[in-house]
Amino acid sequence: MRTYLDCIPCFMSQALRTGRLVGLSDGKIRDLLIELGKKIEDISLDDPPPKTAVMVYDLIANYTGKMDPFKEVKREATEKALALYPHLKRDILESKKPLGRAIRIATLGNVIDFGVSSSYDLEAEIQEMLGQSFGRWDEEAFIEAVTMADWILYLGDNAGETVLDRLLIETLACPTSYVVREAPIINDATREDALAAGLEEVADIISSGCSAPGTVMDQCTPEFLDLFRKAPVIISKGQGNYETLSDVDAPIFFLLKAKCDVVAGHLGVKKGDLVLAARSLDP
Amino acid sequence: MRTYLDCIPCFMSQALRTGRLVGLSDGKIRDLLIELGKKIEDISLDDPPPKTAVMVYDLIANYTGKMDPFKEVKREATEKALALYPHLKRDILESKKPLGRAIRIATLGNVIDFGVSSSYDLEAEIQEMLGQSFGRWDEEAFIEAVTMADWILYLGDNAGETVLDRLLIETLACPTSYVVREAPIINDATREDALAAGLEEVADIISSGCSAPGTVMDQCTPEFLDLFRKAPVIISKGQGNYETLSDVDAPIFFLLKAKCDVVAGHLGVKKGDLVLAARSLDP
Repeated sequence: MRTYLDCIPCFMSQALRTGRLVGLSDGKIRDLLIELGKKIEDISLDDPPPKTAVMVYDLIANYTGKMDPFKEVKREATEKALALYPHLKRDILESKKPLGRAIRIATLGNVIDFGVSSSYDLEAEIQEMLGQSFGRWDEEAFIEAVTMADWILYLGDNAGETVLDRLLIETLACPTSYVVREAPIINDATREDALAAGLEEVADIISSGCSAPGTVMDQCTPEFLDLFRKAPVIISKGQGNYETLSDVDAPIFFLLKAKCDVVAGHLGVKKGDLVLAARSLDP
Repeated sequence: MRTYLDCIPCFMSQALRTGRLVGLSDGKIRDLLIELGKKIEDISLDDPPPKTAVMVYDLIANYTGKMDPFKEVKREATEKALALYPHLKRDILESKKPLGRAIRIATLGNVIDFGVSSSYDLEAEIQEMLGQSFGRWDEEAFIEAVTMADWILYLGDNAGETVLDRLLIETLACPTSYVVREAPIINDATREDALAAGLEEVADIISSGCSAPGTVMDQCTPEFLDLFRKAPVIISKGQGNYETLSDVDAPIFFLLKAKCDVVAGHLGVKKGDLVLAARSLDP
């Protein structure tokens, strides 16, 4: 997916929100917005948005002096999700359709995202889940694919969401490689965050080699690309992975919450919808 | 009210939306956003947002080559509102509290605004009105003030909304001077728009002398300022007038829909709330 004009004001909003989240003064945030404004001409509309996000968050890192300004936010999100884990585990086990339930819970985990919005209430979202409308939900194709697969490549997204991914991986009970970002970017999960979520007990944790908030193929390691090409099924979490992989021909299932009008429009759903979209079933 | 950091991404969004509304190509809109990005450092956070909006919309006018890109949009809004006029007039006349009803309808007219959002459905909004929650509603003070006044200064906002203002003016049945912008800016009402709404039948139409989408006192004519100082009651419609007059000591009643978090926060209400706020009752 390419960058849309709508992404430009959104990058400005992200810089503002992140600046506030990490405690920059109003004066510093103003300087940050001025500098970002001058860089608009460097944004290529042919690139997927996560490629540009690297420039935006590098700039924020320059202002904060922190390479991982979301460290504490990620730690808290993981802790919150871990506290919910036993409750959700029982909920899945007691469900009539445990796999269907685990898919929903893992998709819902994608509400945890500071890139698009700075506030979320995971517990409230989960409570609301039963009544949630799903924009597109290729569950049958997904279940068929994961049932046939002898292993799964699972592309993680945000810290905290990792815990809900773990529940899905446990329910799938199939050998899984869980992919994290190479270095901290926004609140995306790195190896450290995956470990904190206990993912090493249920999956191999590997890095894609990419430090963008997505999976930019030409920034990934040969080892990751080799796995990606061989994988019988790829589960891709979140908008960033969708934005970078929507045009890649591979057996991908995208699980995400459509958090902005641009991605919702690209998927043909409404903003806020939960989505399970089979890449192979695309028109 | 000063400009908040949040207004900066919002100006970018406004430029994007307006560019699309007037049919600029994506390439032209990109150039517009690049140029606006470079001007962020010129934005003074001490100015009210409508002062900056003039720079933004002048830039848009440069790209469109149109001094009044909203001309057609304004004409349609007025036409739509005029079509609703007989229905609303009867609704007010048949109401148990005609004045209260007319105040609500005039405030609701403020949903007509392309500066903040490019879509609205006036009829649907009016239908929903009965169940609408009002964020702050100083109706008692308002009715007392207009009952005592021998004339009213009424600061208009958008074209189309003008028709609903006319209904309130007819219900108040008190000599009224209706104030319009000096020149076209966004979809704000000028003399031409006020005439199209039939306001000359119920009020004197005068210009403030200001061409910003608000009432910037140091851009107004001495004639207007004289009226402003003498007015026993001032009815101020919309966010732009609120943003420019919230700190001015005068007997103002602000009638508006709080369309963004910044203005809602400043008023202590929720975004989307309808507001009737007496300036004199401010804390």
